[in-house]
Amino acid sequence: MKVNSNRVENVSTHHNHVHACPETTIDAPPSTLEIHRVCLPPERSTPQKLKHRVLEIFFPDNPLHKFKNQTGLKKFLLALEFFFPVFQWAPSYRLCLLRSDLISGLTIASLAIPQGISYAKLANLPPIIGLYSSFVPPLVYSILGSSRHLAVGPVSIASLVMGTMLGEVISPVKEPTLYLKLAFTSTFFAGVFQASLGFLRLGFVIDFLSKATLIGFMAGAAVIVSLQQLKGLFGMVHFTNQMQIIPVLASVLKYKNEIGHLPKGLNPPSANMLYFHGSHLALSIKTGIISGILALTEGIAVGRTFATLNKYQVDGNKEMMAIGLMNMAGSCSSCYVTTGSFSRSAVNYNAGGQTAISNVVMATTMLVTLLFLTPLFYYTPNVILAAIIITAVIGLIDYEGALRLWKVDKLDFVACICSFVGVLFVSVPIGLAISVGISVFKILLHVTRPNTTILGNVPGTMIYQSLERYKQAERIPSFLILAVESPIYFANSAYLQERILRWVQDEEAWIKANNKSMLKYVILDMTAVTAIDPSGIELLVELKKMLERRSLQLVLTNPAGNVMEKLHQSNELESFGLQGLYLTVAEAVADISSTRKYQP
Amino acid sequence: MKVNSNRVENVSTHHNHVHACPETTIDAPPSTLEIHRVCLPPERSTPQKLKHRVLEIFFPDNPLHKFKNQTGLKKFLLALEFFFPVFQWAPSYRLCLLRSDLISGLTIASLAIPQGISYAKLANLPPIIGLYSSFVPPLVYSILGSSRHLAVGPVSIASLVMGTMLGEVISPVKEPTLYLKLAFTSTFFAGVFQASLGFLRLGFVIDFLSKATLIGFMAGAAVIVSLQQLKGLFGMVHFTNQMQIIPVLASVLKYKNEIGHLPKGLNPPSANMLYFHGSHLALSIKTGIISGILALTEGIAVGRTFATLNKYQVDGNKEMMAIGLMNMAGSCSSCYVTTGSFSRSAVNYNAGGQTAISNVVMATTMLVTLLFLTPLFYYTPNVILAAIIITAVIGLIDYEGALRLWKVDKLDFVACICSFVGVLFVSVPIGLAISVGISVFKILLHVTRPNTTILGNVPGTMIYQSLERYKQAERIPSFLILAVESPIYFANSAYLQERILRWVQDEEAWIKANNKSMLKYVILDMTAVTAIDPSGIELLVELKKMLERRSLQLVLTNPAGNVMEKLHQSNELESFGLQGLYLTVAEAVADISSTRKYQP
Repeated sequence: MKVNSNRVENVSTHHNHVHACPETTIDAPPSTLEIHRVCLPPERSTPQKLKHRVLEIFFPDNPLHKFKNQTGLKKFLLALEFFFPVFQWAPSYRLCLLRSDLISGLTIASLAIPQGISYAKLANLPPIIGLYSSFVPPLVYSILGSSRHLAVGPVSIASLVMGTMLGEVISPVKEPTLYLKLAFTSTFFAGVFQASLGFLRLGFVIDFLSKATLIGFMAGAAVIVSLQQLKGLFGMVHFTNQMQIIPVLASVLKYKNEIGHLPKGLNPPSANMLYFHGSHLALSIKTGIISGILALTEGIAVGRTFATLNKYQVDGNKEMMAIGLMNMAGSCSSCYVTTGSFSRSAVNYNAGGQTAISNVVMATTMLVTLLFLTPLFYYTPNVILAAIIITAVIGLIDYEGALRLWKVDKLDFVACICSFVGVLFVSVPIGLAISVGISVFKILLHVTRPNTTILGNVPGTMIYQSLERYKQAERIPSFLILAVESPIYFANSAYLQERILRWVQDEEAWIKANNKSMLKYVILDMTAVTAIDPSGIELLVELKKMLERRSLQLVLTNPAGNVMEKLHQSNELESFGLQGLYLTVAEAVADISSTRKYQP
Repeated sequence: MKVNSNRVENVSTHHNHVHACPETTIDAPPSTLEIHRVCLPPERSTPQKLKHRVLEIFFPDNPLHKFKNQTGLKKFLLALEFFFPVFQWAPSYRLCLLRSDLISGLTIASLAIPQGISYAKLANLPPIIGLYSSFVPPLVYSILGSSRHLAVGPVSIASLVMGTMLGEVISPVKEPTLYLKLAFTSTFFAGVFQASLGFLRLGFVIDFLSKATLIGFMAGAAVIVSLQQLKGLFGMVHFTNQMQIIPVLASVLKYKNEIGHLPKGLNPPSANMLYFHGSHLALSIKTGIISGILALTEGIAVGRTFATLNKYQVDGNKEMMAIGLMNMAGSCSSCYVTTGSFSRSAVNYNAGGQTAISNVVMATTMLVTLLFLTPLFYYTPNVILAAIIITAVIGLIDYEGALRLWKVDKLDFVACICSFVGVLFVSVPIGLAISVGISVFKILLHVTRPNTTILGNVPGTMIYQSLERYKQAERIPSFLILAVESPIYFANSAYLQERILRWVQDEEAWIKANNKSMLKYVILDMTAVTAIDPSGIELLVELKKMLERRSLQLVLTNPAGNVMEKLHQSNELESFGLQGLYLTVAEAVADISSTRKYQP
């Protein structure tokens, strides 16, 4: 048995020469009994591993790969492009693009004016703030941002969250100056938070707002806003005691202003209104973080969507820094939280916008408006603003998405409903927290109660698949082959021990009932066990002992690189030794069966 | 091409007859090109799936399997055995076992008396409470418990936690009665919490206290207690201002009592001392939950250890109910939190204890002690108690375990250190919370940043393995084969999209640099993708589109049952269709390559 003796040697030398994996392991001619050794991953020192891990966690996009092998000047230019994407596209900007950018810029400006006014109202802010917020932030974004289609300005969700959270504590009617101060301060903190996430490469934090959470959250928020706006739509302020249809309709039809006078002139500075002390600081920070993260989620998602449609890439972390810096700049120039708006970006894209120049065009239009045209908006009727808001937010109710969740994943649907109900009846942060909690719980549940499947051989092949799913798959006499479908952690090792022992008991009962040949080997297919921790290793060792007491042998197949490494580091690898570790289930079954023939 | 036409039919009928998986899929003779269809799991309705999921989550041990096909009387007897394990072993108890149980019972009683007194002091309680706690709870446990070797009574960790948490708010010296009331109330809540966890089958909650957390926690707790006890060891109470060695030593050598008078007689009832209202209720509940969960963790772990050594099983959830009920009973009979003690259980086992009768013997010894012998303990010197406590807790410092963590998993080691530092310098609940948080974060990190590996073919086989780990593995021209090593969730779908596209870019750059044949197919090996959610499905659809725009085809191999199911439910399965879905990488490569030959 050349193959086997070769394998013995390999296993016994595992400990000393684990990395000396030769080009060809087997010198026997290929046969059905060709057995391949399970290799350890290439040896790396702790700092090397740490570096690799940190790079994978924080720099999965390898942002510095362009800087390799470049001269000093080239590196400087690349760095400039890296920090200010405007240097990437501006030098190659051709005038023929200007026509498209001009048209799309004017189009989104025509949307941004009424939406700006409406969303500012949603945030309980003076309408002019909405116009200011469509001027400075788009200019900043056009220098720092990497998306070509994002239309920047106030958005409904962030406005709503800010209005709700600040409005719960401070009345915008009774203390308008304090309210305004807190709004700017929240915007500042939103910007700091967003920019820090990007700078610290923690962009994955927004990944924890799952689809389910967002669908539920937006629907809940939309219902709240619509209810609030009905007041405006029906002019309730003047008819609180008269609910009959005629006066209500009369009020609806009576075009009048409540907006009040819009001051002429550009954004006044507001850095002096930032508020870094006192009892409301915590509220500003909280509002900033929550409206900031929601604004970021929308902005990044919209940016990614249009980048995908146009085959370019946006860098999530860089976008976060751009959006964050734009909000920090905004908070010092009388703007509140802004981000990429989904609706206006879609319009921008459809109107043919090609580069961030459309944002510049929009900002210029806003400049002209602020300098000369604000008096025109004096007569914008409340009912139109309310209608704009309701139309905008009703579009946020994605009942089809919710139905799809119900169809595909019930627990996701529960998370969605919790988010909806929480936002509607409790508060925005609680609703979000519950929903994120459920989403995280779902991940943990999958880890805590992993699936184990019993495998069988598809006749005539080396394929081993679930007996339940593949009816043609057959049990191998004397073998119980189990696939563990999760990493093995402290959180599931006790469960897996119980579950695997139950599989063994059930199998033995089945064998007894059906008069089959006795169980002798338990094979754990470790392909899907992508990680292991000390408790997991203890489980394997413990399980091996327990099975040995029942005269059963435990065999592992195809352990992943880092699982092998940890078994090796904890000195448990050799206890599995020969015939305890194989590369594939097929090889394990073939080798063990053939060896058994020679042993009485 | 018989095989292929057969496959087309299979794929096209997927949608209507997904579960009609015939015994043999392929009627062509076996060849290297034999292609197997990817099956959906057997169809189950939502309630069936829910039932299966709930059973796997809450009843992994299938506790009712014995009740199947039994008569009414037998079922009643089984239920009796189920709820009172004493009925399982008592009828078959043989007198020959009594000798061993008597010896081991007396041995653990001789330990329980000084330990009970010491641990009660640790909890800032009158010493007699420690003796009471070694009388009632063991009796209750011997009726309800399923472990044969657990020695029940007060333990150091739970005593320490109770003493620290209550002592921070209430002084046991100034308000001894209130303190005692709160201790009994905490014990009651600990019992309620433990029993509820068992009853609601939520036993897996204790699995979240990882090895790392416990090592750090116990070491931190041990240091605190040792420092506190030095006072007792050196008689500091009388020498607080005299730190010279001679008076300290004199005090150490001066055998004297501080214990005070131990009342004769059995446990007085204490149900009237439970405290269900007022300002300290929250403190009692918090103390109860934390000392309860720690007591549970020790009790269950010890029970499992000795059950494994003796080839019997303890039922985690039933044990929780037993320990919980025993603490509820204890709180009404002047006992504080008790559980299975590791040290006394080990002594019990080594002294030959065979059944829970050894607990009964110990309780009887305690009865005699309480009735007649308490005056003897009047002269127990403080220094001896301090020495017992320090010896007990120093044993809790598992520095070897911590070293092993450092060797195997750096992040686990960090969790351990955080738990240690948190308990030592902040507080018990904060220390535990931080450590559990890190452990959970580690799981989430693994999910958020999953590993992706590039696979190659081991020449002459159907095996595809990591190119990095298996040097003999070879790239297949025109194919990029990637293994995704984690479920695909909302938390990682954005990352995976970026990462996979980077793999494609790197591969294309490598091909260009090495003048290899152009990339045409990207195969995702989904073996380790054991679950998917709506964001994950969106990623696959999105990725397919993005790759198509680069003239690359995306192929999935071996998707797990529930992944197939979700792709099917979201109507995305057919978009992969023919040549987009294979059972193994080898079949995908073989089939696509052979088809390509016939297509110009």
